[in-house]
Amino acid sequence: MEQKVFDPTVQKALEQFKRLDEKITHYSSVIGLVDWDQKVMAPKKGRRVFAKATGTLRTEVFKLSVSTEMGDLLAVLTSPENFVSLNGVTKAKVREYKAYYQKSKSIPADLFQEYSILTAQANDAWEEARANNDFPHYLPYLEKIVDFKRKFAEIYGYEEHPYDALLDEFEPGLTVKRLDPLFAKLRESSVRLLEKIQNRGKRTHDEIFNQSFEIEKQKEFNRFILPIIGFDMEAGRLDETIHPFAQTVNTGDVRLTTRYIENNVRSALFGTIHEAGHGIYEQHVNPEFEESVLQSGASFGIHESQSRFLENMVGRSKEFWNYFYPHLKSYFPKQLENVTVAEFYRAVNTVKPSLIRVEADELTYNLHIMIRYEIEKALISGEIEAKDLPATWNQKMQEYLGITPNTDRDGVLQDVHWSFGGIGYFPSYSLGNIYSAQILRTIQKEIPDFYQHIGNGRFELIQAWLKEKIHQYGKLYTPNELIVKATGEELNAEYLVEYLEKKYSEVYGL
Amino acid sequence: MEQKVFDPTVQKALEQFKRLDEKITHYSSVIGLVDWDQKVMAPKKGRRVFAKATGTLRTEVFKLSVSTEMGDLLAVLTSPENFVSLNGVTKAKVREYKAYYQKSKSIPADLFQEYSILTAQANDAWEEARANNDFPHYLPYLEKIVDFKRKFAEIYGYEEHPYDALLDEFEPGLTVKRLDPLFAKLRESSVRLLEKIQNRGKRTHDEIFNQSFEIEKQKEFNRFILPIIGFDMEAGRLDETIHPFAQTVNTGDVRLTTRYIENNVRSALFGTIHEAGHGIYEQHVNPEFEESVLQSGASFGIHESQSRFLENMVGRSKEFWNYFYPHLKSYFPKQLENVTVAEFYRAVNTVKPSLIRVEADELTYNLHIMIRYEIEKALISGEIEAKDLPATWNQKMQEYLGITPNTDRDGVLQDVHWSFGGIGYFPSYSLGNIYSAQILRTIQKEIPDFYQHIGNGRFELIQAWLKEKIHQYGKLYTPNELIVKATGEELNAEYLVEYLEKKYSEVYGL
Repeated sequence: MEQKVFDPTVQKALEQFKRLDEKITHYSSVIGLVDWDQKVMAPKKGRRVFAKATGTLRTEVFKLSVSTEMGDLLAVLTSPENFVSLNGVTKAKVREYKAYYQKSKSIPADLFQEYSILTAQANDAWEEARANNDFPHYLPYLEKIVDFKRKFAEIYGYEEHPYDALLDEFEPGLTVKRLDPLFAKLRESSVRLLEKIQNRGKRTHDEIFNQSFEIEKQKEFNRFILPIIGFDMEAGRLDETIHPFAQTVNTGDVRLTTRYIENNVRSALFGTIHEAGHGIYEQHVNPEFEESVLQSGASFGIHESQSRFLENMVGRSKEFWNYFYPHLKSYFPKQLENVTVAEFYRAVNTVKPSLIRVEADELTYNLHIMIRYEIEKALISGEIEAKDLPATWNQKMQEYLGITPNTDRDGVLQDVHWSFGGIGYFPSYSLGNIYSAQILRTIQKEIPDFYQHIGNGRFELIQAWLKEKIHQYGKLYTPNELIVKATGEELNAEYLVEYLEKKYSEVYGL
Repeated sequence: MEQKVFDPTVQKALEQFKRLDEKITHYSSVIGLVDWDQKVMAPKKGRRVFAKATGTLRTEVFKLSVSTEMGDLLAVLTSPENFVSLNGVTKAKVREYKAYYQKSKSIPADLFQEYSILTAQANDAWEEARANNDFPHYLPYLEKIVDFKRKFAEIYGYEEHPYDALLDEFEPGLTVKRLDPLFAKLRESSVRLLEKIQNRGKRTHDEIFNQSFEIEKQKEFNRFILPIIGFDMEAGRLDETIHPFAQTVNTGDVRLTTRYIENNVRSALFGTIHEAGHGIYEQHVNPEFEESVLQSGASFGIHESQSRFLENMVGRSKEFWNYFYPHLKSYFPKQLENVTVAEFYRAVNTVKPSLIRVEADELTYNLHIMIRYEIEKALISGEIEAKDLPATWNQKMQEYLGITPNTDRDGVLQDVHWSFGGIGYFPSYSLGNIYSAQILRTIQKEIPDFYQHIGNGRFELIQAWLKEKIHQYGKLYTPNELIVKATGEELNAEYLVEYLEKKYSEVYGL
């Protein structure tokens, strides 16, 4: 995009803004790399001191983002007469920095300091509480975090629901008003579908996974599939961690991790495909956005849509396994000797209500999210208090999933998110699923033989489509703009509902 | 060390200086880590853009080190009335920053800019020239580098020889006047010793290394010896690169690399021991110096003394192999089936004049350095010009080593150092050898059964001695202060001369 010629003040502000953006992004890129290093590579004795070094760099990024310089530049560039004349790319950059600047500036420094100390302590308390199944130990911290978040919501401001202010951090522009009906539809249909599956009583042979799959072979197979499904191994790596993640350094350096478990071949397999979805997204961002705040994905929800799309819509499809199963079988001939591809496909699509979110299947996963969403909303609006959480949690688990945890460790204590103040984060996971089904429906319209491509192990056209319609844009568009541009309509849960009904009708012969 | 109470201005300056030192060191620590990452881990497509990110961080470190803030702080802290009252640690920190500040500030910005561009181009030109054996292609760059270095020497200032100003960058305080007699003695004795060895005509069985040693087994053996010789694997790593190096992140995170060659088991073996010498040094620095400029080794020469000590004095000793050879044999039973430990010991101490410095043995290595030292001195003083280099090089090779390279690629073009402006660097390598023999002589006085410890595979006492006498101090002392403190006298080449004569008399039965 060409930039029109501005008067010297604006021109100078634009150049200064570009340099500041570049510096912040360079530092963030370095922080991304060293974060990865400390989780994946660093020897343990150096980590404590190194955390102080990265702390210094993080503080610098924060200072630059809320500096007087940034404030002055944003004031010039967002003035009504100047902003309209900016090109789309600059507008998007200004939008990103402005949102962060305003949020950060609105919190008084001492309040933020207090909050930072609290979340560090709360994280430790949560770890201990989970280890000892001791919710009361965590409760006072959680209460304070909820208090802070209620305060922050008031400070940030919102139109209808205080939770909107928190949602906005993860999915810019999203509100309870828009989300409630989407989630209600998904929840009701999922509960109904789960009931139907359970009433049908048909079993899948997921016991085939209860065998030893040599880890070295698993590694080879994971490395075998990554480039085929579209991950560029010359622009990335695959390593191992207990908690898998994808970390971007830049578009030419995206690092995935996965976890190999000998008695659970599914863990690494779908974990790797999931993280590859995140990673391919970042590898495909327009190189012009590199060294700028636009270099990353549009939002948590959109990002999750790309990982879920690859993991579920692609990676748990019949065609995917028609292509890959003979390969998998050649890696594990004994373990899969008597398992047909049809059985394998059904096995990887087993539905089984379980207590732990991160182990949930494609259908029940969203119900876990619904529970957290409803609790968060009620906490922030003041309908419930932190002390009510174990009871509320267990009651909702029973209501939606038909099971109740015996311990808080397997219930309300299972997730780290609240301990670092990440209230508003959970909806992203289900948003990802909703987005991904909507994207699936569009891509199938535009590439009618979509699943044939997968069945032939050809991912080029599919990845090219995703790149063109979604990935290349980075943060150029807001999530809502992006999904409308890519699919022609706003977020619609209908497609996920249909997708799930169709898939499980087939898998379970409903 | 306790700090006395100063007036508020000085007290404030001290606090500010501490924070600035911490910030610079934090950034340097991050730069160290990401430099390692880019050489060892990073996928290739991301490196170009990431170099810009680290460039931003490097620039920031430079800016902080020569900032007005630094200048003002140094002015306060080095004023005669204040400096004398500082404690030793602060004095050392001030000394380090002052030296860098003065050097950097003395070069006009545009001259430095020009020089930076030149060295970047010269490095490319050198790579091409070496690949194509084309010295004339490199010559114009080298001429300009020499011009710059002559200019810098005048700007930095010196008392007797302009080369002193350059030496000082690598070995603070060292001069031609002190170095000339040390090197003359070493050169003469080495040439004589080499002649004796060649006249003796006795061969070692180094052909045993011309066999295939499985790389996986080599890796295992390298990992086996590292913790035994004193490298803490929980405070470090061992990885692979073409050019081995040691990189410190902090004292709890020191990363070594080595290179495995199937037909050259010596390469990784002695490379790893060498780098471990560097690495153990940094692991042993007093943790109180962490997050400060004192956290690293005293000088290039002292650092090299620690790697050479471990590689040569320890790692090529008879006792070392008395202990380790049975282990090595268990890793490579076939290759070493008919080789006795005495033969193996003699083989790893083979002397053979060769063209390439990095492949040279313990004796002839110093002669390679003498050639470079004499050339550098003559270039800087104007006795010779860059165009004379191939002829001078070949003539000196013939004179000292008795061989002449057929191509400049195997002669004057072999080293990278001059292309990045590193004139004054080479002497560090032989200084390391001289220091290490002097240290050996002291440690043998204080631990009379030094070589018995090695023969028993017990390195605790030896490493504790090195830690106490040398390693712990980091940059607290200048190299000269440190060697006097540790060995009771200034640098003396006599000990290396004796050591070499003794060793080779034995190996070659002179």
